[in-house]
Amino acid sequence: MVTKGNVFDPNCPTRVILDRIGDKWTVLAVLLLRDGPLRFTELRDGIGRVAPKVLTQTLRRMERDGLITREVFAEIPPRVVYTLTPLGTSLIAPISVLSDWAENHLPAITTAQTRYDAAV
Amino acid sequence: MVTKGNVFDPNCPTRVILDRIGDKWTVLAVLLLRDGPLRFTELRDGIGRVAPKVLTQTLRRMERDGLITREVFAEIPPRVVYTLTPLGTSLIAPISVLSDWAENHLPAITTAQTRYDAAV
Repeated sequence: MVTKGNVFDPNCPTRVILDRIGDKWTVLAVLLLRDGPLRFTELRDGIGRVAPKVLTQTLRRMERDGLITREVFAEIPPRVVYTLTPLGTSLIAPISVLSDWAENHLPAITTAQTRYDAAV
Repeated sequence: MVTKGNVFDPNCPTRVILDRIGDKWTVLAVLLLRDGPLRFTELRDGIGRVAPKVLTQTLRRMERDGLITREVFAEIPPRVVYTLTPLGTSLIAPISVLSDWAENHLPAITTAQTRYDAAV
């Protein structure tokens, strides 16, 4: 029975999880679903420039990890709706902190890259 | 002049940055360097089971992004020491939040995966 992960144990699946929740498509999907359930096309358009196949794989992994649910409504055409689970909802805060950091520090990173490339 | 990134703009490099800081090797390197400068071998041993080439690439990207500095001391053999910059230090908090989430929710994710795989 797993009680808690250890990111410094190479045998612990926490590393795999960490990589997955830090993936940009997962981050964007969680941030979009923060405001309520969305259809596939709404997620695709909200993320922008993501291959449908990649988005499908991302959503399937998120469903398998228990972060989202996928509901199919028998309409014509069928309506597929994705919703954050309580587990997925608990990820909003950490992911927002990471995403805010990236947005706020982009100028500093860009400056560092320019300096590095000029020195190489 | 970049003032702030926007993770929802597909043209904005924030996405690239987001992917990079969410990468498991970057996360582990930042967490290890939190307690002070480290040599390459100390980072490699602290992370465990990482290909030296992959770690080298990770550290080079982190240096280029301005997260760490790399100092070479002319000893025999040469000593190479990595240190978090103030920018890299500002990443400790968001990354710790993400890593803690992964460690704490590993049992819930493992349970969800088992349930999903049984249903497929």
